[in-house]
Amino acid sequence: MKNNTKQNGQHEDIKKLGKLIEKIDFAMFTTMDDDGTLRSRPMSTQQVEFDGDLWFFTGADAAKVHEVRRQQQVNVSYANIKKQEYVSVSGQAELVRDRAKIKELWNPIYKAWFPGGVDDPNLALLKVHVEKAEYWDSPNSTVVQLVGFAKALVTGQSYEGGENKKINLASPMA
Amino acid sequence: MKNNTKQNGQHEDIKKLGKLIEKIDFAMFTTMDDDGTLRSRPMSTQQVEFDGDLWFFTGADAAKVHEVRRQQQVNVSYANIKKQEYVSVSGQAELVRDRAKIKELWNPIYKAWFPGGVDDPNLALLKVHVEKAEYWDSPNSTVVQLVGFAKALVTGQSYEGGENKKINLASPMA
Repeated sequence: MKNNTKQNGQHEDIKKLGKLIEKIDFAMFTTMDDDGTLRSRPMSTQQVEFDGDLWFFTGADAAKVHEVRRQQQVNVSYANIKKQEYVSVSGQAELVRDRAKIKELWNPIYKAWFPGGVDDPNLALLKVHVEKAEYWDSPNSTVVQLVGFAKALVTGQSYEGGENKKINLASPMA
Repeated sequence: MKNNTKQNGQHEDIKKLGKLIEKIDFAMFTTMDDDGTLRSRPMSTQQVEFDGDLWFFTGADAAKVHEVRRQQQVNVSYANIKKQEYVSVSGQAELVRDRAKIKELWNPIYKAWFPGGVDDPNLALLKVHVEKAEYWDSPNSTVVQLVGFAKALVTGQSYEGGENKKINLASPMA
């Protein structure tokens, strides 16, 4: 029974995480460079129901693909300052060249920069297998909560006004 | 002459970077955890004229301080989705407990979570010495530019519609 409750809670957390990500299209995708530098760049998350993996289109020859091959650990962050919603996702990234998956996620508007369409040999996907996630979600209703939330923003610590949930997808029974 | 022109260009780039950062209060601050996980959390950038360092208030006992002591390399990203402005800053972070600097950046509203004020022994600063930075800034005027920008977002590559500038602060003559 206890495990069920925990699993249901976990399920709700993942659902909530998926909703937050869905609302914020553009993520900052952080990788580690050859010299240990952490770099981030804006990336558009492919809209599919969140099941623990995030998907991004990429050129197979992009610098970040090289970085991910060397160091799979990445961070994907989502920030909606206006709504004070923030998500940190940690996971392992890998290049996926599976044509079936590319076709599944393909949208004709992408043809502008992959003129060969789904058959463009440089067209590929970056899949991030989520291991850990954290989100900050302010209900945004009272000044106390905003102050509490501001505390989290200034100090990076959790606050009582809103939610700060940590989710561990790698070991759901933990 | 050539060097002067380059330095002036560099100066303009840094000024532009400072302006973009100033407009986006809340950054996602990415550190490396003990197990190699990349984690990010929202942090409020202290508003001072940008000279190559970014400043954040922190509790000296915060988890990220521990992480930064072990691995100084961090990424600080700024995202304004509505304006399609994105900044990636790479640098070395360090804990600063200098009371003069704390007093300089102190604002009485912080007393809510550091009740001891500037003399709270746990109150400290995280300083990020910027080594590399990149920004995406869409002039947002024509459809072509938006498509171009969308390309950068989807593929992580630079686009011609707006600007994608890389700035290297560590070696300004490079």
